[in-house]
Amino acid sequence: MYPVKDCQMLPNTMRALVLRDYDGKPENIGVAEMPMPRPGAGEVLVRIAASPVNPSDLMFIRGLYGFKKALPAIPGFEASGTVVAAGGGLMARLLVGRRVACAAADPGIAGGTWAQYLVTGASRCIPLHKDVDMEQGATLLVNPLTAWGLVEQARRGAHRAVVQTAAASALGRMIVRLARRFSIATINIVRRPEQVELLHKSGVEHVLNMNDATFDAELRDLCHSLGATISFDAVAGKLSARIIRAQPERSRLLIYGGLSQEPVRIEPGSLIFERKRVEGFWLSSWLRTKNALSRLRIAGKVQKLLATDLRTDIQARLPLEEAARGLEQYVTHMTSGKVLFLP
Amino acid sequence: MYPVKDCQMLPNTMRALVLRDYDGKPENIGVAEMPMPRPGAGEVLVRIAASPVNPSDLMFIRGLYGFKKALPAIPGFEASGTVVAAGGGLMARLLVGRRVACAAADPGIAGGTWAQYLVTGASRCIPLHKDVDMEQGATLLVNPLTAWGLVEQARRGAHRAVVQTAAASALGRMIVRLARRFSIATINIVRRPEQVELLHKSGVEHVLNMNDATFDAELRDLCHSLGATISFDAVAGKLSARIIRAQPERSRLLIYGGLSQEPVRIEPGSLIFERKRVEGFWLSSWLRTKNALSRLRIAGKVQKLLATDLRTDIQARLPLEEAARGLEQYVTHMTSGKVLFLP
Repeated sequence: MYPVKDCQMLPNTMRALVLRDYDGKPENIGVAEMPMPRPGAGEVLVRIAASPVNPSDLMFIRGLYGFKKALPAIPGFEASGTVVAAGGGLMARLLVGRRVACAAADPGIAGGTWAQYLVTGASRCIPLHKDVDMEQGATLLVNPLTAWGLVEQARRGAHRAVVQTAAASALGRMIVRLARRFSIATINIVRRPEQVELLHKSGVEHVLNMNDATFDAELRDLCHSLGATISFDAVAGKLSARIIRAQPERSRLLIYGGLSQEPVRIEPGSLIFERKRVEGFWLSSWLRTKNALSRLRIAGKVQKLLATDLRTDIQARLPLEEAARGLEQYVTHMTSGKVLFLP
Repeated sequence: MYPVKDCQMLPNTMRALVLRDYDGKPENIGVAEMPMPRPGAGEVLVRIAASPVNPSDLMFIRGLYGFKKALPAIPGFEASGTVVAAGGGLMARLLVGRRVACAAADPGIAGGTWAQYLVTGASRCIPLHKDVDMEQGATLLVNPLTAWGLVEQARRGAHRAVVQTAAASALGRMIVRLARRFSIATINIVRRPEQVELLHKSGVEHVLNMNDATFDAELRDLCHSLGATISFDAVAGKLSARIIRAQPERSRLLIYGGLSQEPVRIEPGSLIFERKRVEGFWLSSWLRTKNALSRLRIAGKVQKLLATDLRTDIQARLPLEEAARGLEQYVTHMTSGKVLFLP
């Protein structure tokens, strides 16, 4: 695969998945021919190799994400690929010909990663180590970096243990392994017996099913005996309230998803008398707190762990044409691994 | 009034208001003869001059406060009085004969301030300046110090403006005046037209009635134009959610009361994408973050403002025997001033 340094050599159109409405109906996503995007100053053009479906994509498609793009828009937040052209600027030119993990550009721009090509800022590309393949590279940014960012919160606050919800998700399992690496215990909340099984089989010690009658009492006991004073919550709603109640004084609840589609509920007394706090965590905001050098350093550490603690299971590889099947399969088998689009 | 340095000279019993149940029924509070408390090491005996009814007392009586005392218990968190005996220790002995503002001791001890005498730690007494009378001294600790503590949060975070609920309360009006002294604007939320009137008449500029149809839009506009990135909320429930939605990104909501008796509700998106935070504020916890010297320094500053920014209006002075009438009057006329018990 050779870099195309001159954009004139590229075709004028590309195939992409295009979203026509935020109503969440599958018929409103489909393949279309779109104009080939052209990189501006400081930007690169990436020929996409693979791009995953993440929970944040599902939120985006339903209009529940932090921003909406103007329609029609190309979804997809992350991918792997090869930089085939640069729009100018030292960083961008240095990337030409390199294999990268890349994130879609800021809101306002219609471009997403579920397409044959993506234009994005050079600072949104991470060169891939030679032993990281395009499939693992495609999922480098969202899950592994979010796991790193969340576990960093626990390390910084010197928390001895963490409570997490959606613990059987790909991200949840990364958090378990990464926390263990830093000697932080995890208390893992799931909602189905099969998920308890799954986690126990993979060697996870503390797993609680939120639908068990003994859930609240067991959660409280574990939180107090292990010193779990921070929690990572992707569910929100009533579950947040149960976690907050169970944790020791001065605990922090970090919301990073809203799978229940319900507001977080908290008893005022927990906040006032027990000094508990509720905050959010968003990968984009967290990354903005780091300078370019720290970001590269973290990305390097994360890549070294992609084969072990931060590995991603892939359950399906599909062409763009099978978007509806891919989304359906991911929604119904979320814990079986990622679905990748290979454009 | 002479100090009684020898506890032997004191009577063996005293009159006090006694709580017999946390069910909130008025017949479960009444005057009883109780044993005269004796100060231990580091403690003093205070002959109470006046003690107010505060919202925290109402919560305590209903069992909704941060802790419960073993029953029967004497309610009341703050008072003024004269130290008539010391149980030993330099600080305690130095206080004998002094007029003080005092707070009831920690939970676990049955003693409260709605009584003729109180035993409490010497560190829980603030000597009163000579120009502060017993009535203003009786309400020195809870409201003025809470106002100081809350406004300190706004000053520390360099917030240009504050949103507050229950703005027509005694504490709410102190916060308005104190914030103005530090050039911090206030956006004041009330729930009745008379309260809008009352605050406008006393020169408060931004007053919003939460039951007006235009409330949410006006709150949003004011928050953004004034830069109100912190809020002090005594109500909780749905109102908290409306405030959080209205405020700019990265705002902090401090809950210091739960008058609505409902949980705080927050959309996950506000926490994740807008980086908003929800925390609590409790006077006791805040004071514990200060050393003895800082506490005295703050108490000194607060006393200097008792005649102006931090003055308390008194609506009734009642003997202990009229407890039921006093509580009733306070609950139904909360914005008319404090009700004091004069034992």
